[in-house]
Amino acid sequence: MGMTMTQKILAKHAGLASVTAGQLVEGRLDLVLGNDITTPVAITEFDKAGLIQVFDRNKIAIVLDHYTPCKDIKAAQLCAQARSFAQRFGITHFYDVGQMGVEHALIPEKGLAAPGEVITGADSHTCTYGALGAFSTGVGSTDMAAGMATGLAWFKVPSAIKVTLTGKPGKYVSGKDVVLHLIGEIGVDGALYQSLEFAGDGVAELTMDDRFTIANMAIEAGAKNGIFPVDARTRAYLKGRVDRPWEAVEPDADAVYEREVVIDLSVLRPTVSLPHLPSNTKTVDEAAGMSIQQVVIGSCTNGRLKDLQEAADILKGRQVAKGVRCIVIPATQQIYVDAMAQGLIQTFIESGCAVSTPTCGPCLGGHMGVLADGERAVSTTNRNFVGRMGPVSSEIILASPAVAAASAVAGVIADPETVMGGTQA
Amino acid sequence: MGMTMTQKILAKHAGLASVTAGQLVEGRLDLVLGNDITTPVAITEFDKAGLIQVFDRNKIAIVLDHYTPCKDIKAAQLCAQARSFAQRFGITHFYDVGQMGVEHALIPEKGLAAPGEVITGADSHTCTYGALGAFSTGVGSTDMAAGMATGLAWFKVPSAIKVTLTGKPGKYVSGKDVVLHLIGEIGVDGALYQSLEFAGDGVAELTMDDRFTIANMAIEAGAKNGIFPVDARTRAYLKGRVDRPWEAVEPDADAVYEREVVIDLSVLRPTVSLPHLPSNTKTVDEAAGMSIQQVVIGSCTNGRLKDLQEAADILKGRQVAKGVRCIVIPATQQIYVDAMAQGLIQTFIESGCAVSTPTCGPCLGGHMGVLADGERAVSTTNRNFVGRMGPVSSEIILASPAVAAASAVAGVIADPETVMGGTQA
Repeated sequence: MGMTMTQKILAKHAGLASVTAGQLVEGRLDLVLGNDITTPVAITEFDKAGLIQVFDRNKIAIVLDHYTPCKDIKAAQLCAQARSFAQRFGITHFYDVGQMGVEHALIPEKGLAAPGEVITGADSHTCTYGALGAFSTGVGSTDMAAGMATGLAWFKVPSAIKVTLTGKPGKYVSGKDVVLHLIGEIGVDGALYQSLEFAGDGVAELTMDDRFTIANMAIEAGAKNGIFPVDARTRAYLKGRVDRPWEAVEPDADAVYEREVVIDLSVLRPTVSLPHLPSNTKTVDEAAGMSIQQVVIGSCTNGRLKDLQEAADILKGRQVAKGVRCIVIPATQQIYVDAMAQGLIQTFIESGCAVSTPTCGPCLGGHMGVLADGERAVSTTNRNFVGRMGPVSSEIILASPAVAAASAVAGVIADPETVMGGTQA
Repeated sequence: MGMTMTQKILAKHAGLASVTAGQLVEGRLDLVLGNDITTPVAITEFDKAGLIQVFDRNKIAIVLDHYTPCKDIKAAQLCAQARSFAQRFGITHFYDVGQMGVEHALIPEKGLAAPGEVITGADSHTCTYGALGAFSTGVGSTDMAAGMATGLAWFKVPSAIKVTLTGKPGKYVSGKDVVLHLIGEIGVDGALYQSLEFAGDGVAELTMDDRFTIANMAIEAGAKNGIFPVDARTRAYLKGRVDRPWEAVEPDADAVYEREVVIDLSVLRPTVSLPHLPSNTKTVDEAAGMSIQQVVIGSCTNGRLKDLQEAADILKGRQVAKGVRCIVIPATQQIYVDAMAQGLIQTFIESGCAVSTPTCGPCLGGHMGVLADGERAVSTTNRNFVGRMGPVSSEIILASPAVAAASAVAGVIADPETVMGGTQA
C-alpha cells in the first residue's frame, strides 16, 4: 500500500520499510525545539526524571521569543532557567534576546529544518516546517524533555487529507487566504490527527513565505502536520542555509488519502476569520466595514519579509487611521534588517505604526499590544479564540498582511483593492 | 533682591513683579502633562471632583509611553481610560501607540515646551524641559487633575544652587557623566526643593541632547527643577518647532543662590552610579570589570539621537558579548527614523541588539527587558533603586550610552576608550 510524504518520512526515521496510518512507531528526531514558555517546563521534567545528558547538543534549539525582551519578573526567571540549561549542556542553537526571532521563522532561516527531517517542538505551530517538506509537529513539554534526552519520540502514523491547489492567486491573495479558506472549508477539527498533504500545480505559484504561512496553520484545522512537496523554490530557499545532506520525499503514486480537498487559487478572495474561531471565515467583502481599534502584523504565521512587503505596499504614503494602533513585528532580526534595507520599516514608522523587536507578543496576549475590554483587532496571527489577545470581551479577526494593512488605513476591515483605489473602490 | 531664572519665570506666571524663595504663589500653566500610568489616576480624581471641562484642550498633553504597546490587560484598560478622556475633551496633544515616544523626549520634539514657560507633568522627570529654559516640574496625579481643570498650580518658590560648568568635555564624556558626577557630589537630596541653575562657559560645549539629559536628572538630586540659560543652540533647536512667542529668561546679576557648585568638564571621567543610588558614583575606571547580563540604551534620559549615535559608534563592527542582552530603545518615532536614516538601527541589529519601539519599558521594570534574580544591568536610565528593573536581588548601574555600549561589547563595565582601542587599552 502506497505511503504519503509524512508516512514515508516517519517510516524512514523509525527504520521501517513501510508504515500504515494508525500504526505506533518510534522515530528518530532531527531537532527538538522549545521556547521560553515551554522549555522551563521541560527542564523541570528533565531534572525530575534525573536525566543528566542530552542526546545531541547540536540537535536541540531553544528560542526565547514569547515574553521577550522580558515583560515581567516571572518571564525573566523562566528565561534565566532556560539560559542556565543551555549553558549547562552547551546547547548550540540557543537564541537569546538580540539574536533571536519568532522560533518558527528563525528555525528555517537558520537552516535548522530540511526536507525529510523529523522535528518536534514544544509549541503547537512547530508544524510550520512542513513548508520545506519536513515532518514537524507540536508536542508537550514532557515530550520535549524526553526528546532532549533520547532523541526519540513515539508517533501514531497519521492518515492524510490531500489538498490539491490549482491556478494562480490574484494580486491581494496570499498564503494566509489559502489556509483560512481551507480551515473554513474543513473546520477546526477537519483534519484531526491527520496530515494535510499539499499537491497540485498551484503549489508552484506560492512563495516559500506563503507556504510557511499555510503549513504553520495546519494545526488550526486540527492536523498533526501540514507538508509541501519540495520544488525549485524550496531548493533555492535551502541553498546556503542547509549544508547537511537531506532528501526530498514524494508521495507514492498509490498513496492513500482519506479525502481530497481542491482549492482553485485563481478564484480565492482575500479571506478573514471572524471571532472566535479560525474556521469562522468570510471573504473580506462580507466583513468589510467592521470597526477595529488595533492591527497586528507579525507572528510565526505572517511576520516574514514577503508579509512585511505586502503590508508596506499598502501603507506607503498612507496613514494609519485615527483611533487605530498598528503594531508591526518583523519575525526575526534578519527579516528586520532586510525590511529596513528595503525601506519597509521607514514606511511603517512614517505611516504611524509601532515597529517592535521580534517577539510573539500580542499573538498570545503576551505583551506588545494586549487589548482592552471590548476592543477588536485585525491580526495576521493564527488564533482568534476568546480572550487570546486580551479580556474575554475583546475580539480578533484573522487576516493576511494585505488585509490587515488596508484595514489599518481604513480604520475598518477593508479590501486592499479598495484602499489601493482599484476597480472595486 | 535679584531673582534666579526659575524665580523670574514663576513671578511672571503669577502676575507678580518679584518673588522670593519660600513664597507661595499661584502660577499659570502653559502645559499640563500625563502618561498612561498617571493620567488615569488624574482622570479618576477629575471625575470624582465633578469637573466637566478642561482649561484649554490645546495645553494638555497625554502620552501613552510607559507600558505601551500594552504589556497586559491592566495596562490596556488604563490606556483605554486615557484615550476615552482625550476623545471626550478633544485633547489636541494625545499621543497613542505608533505616534508617540517617551514623553520627555516627545514634548520638546513636538515644540510643546519653550523658554520661560511653566509646565507641570504627572511624572517626576518632567524637569527635562529645563534644558530649554522652561520651568518644568513633576507633580502628583491630583495636581494634574486640578491643572487640567484650572490651568493653575500652587508653587513654593524654590531657592537655588548655581551649577557653574567650565571647560570642554573629553571625547567619551557626555551630559550623563556631568549629571551623575553632580549627583555624586551633592547627593540624592543635595538640591531638595531647590532649583539647579546651570551657568558658565561650559554650557556652550553641551549639545541640546546633553542638556536634556542633565535637566532630566535634576530630580535625582532632589531638585524641584533644573534649568539652563537659552543660547544659540537652544534657539536653533526651537526653530521650526515652536512658533508661538516665547521669552528667554536670564538670572538677575544679583540673583541669590544658596551655594555654587563648579564642575570642570575638561577633567570629568566617564562616570557610573553603582547600585542602589544615583549618588553612588564612581569613575568608569573604578567600576571597570564588573559583570553584567543586560544593557539598556534608551529612556527619557538617554534615548535621543546623539545618545544612539554615541552607542552606535562603539557597537559598529563589534558584537554584543555572549551572555549579555543589549536592548536599544529610540525615545521617539522621529528619533527612530532619524537613527535608521543614519544607519544606526542597522548597526544595532547587526551587533546583536534588540531594537524596541519607543517605550519607557525597562527603566521602571515595566516591560521590554525586566531582569531575573541576581542579574545586573548597565543602563542609560535615571534610577538604580532596589528592584527598579526586576526583583530586589537585581542590580542597575547607571551610565552614559557610550559606557553602556562599551560594556555591552566587553561583557563587563568598560571604558569606551578601552573598547575603541584608545591609549588606555
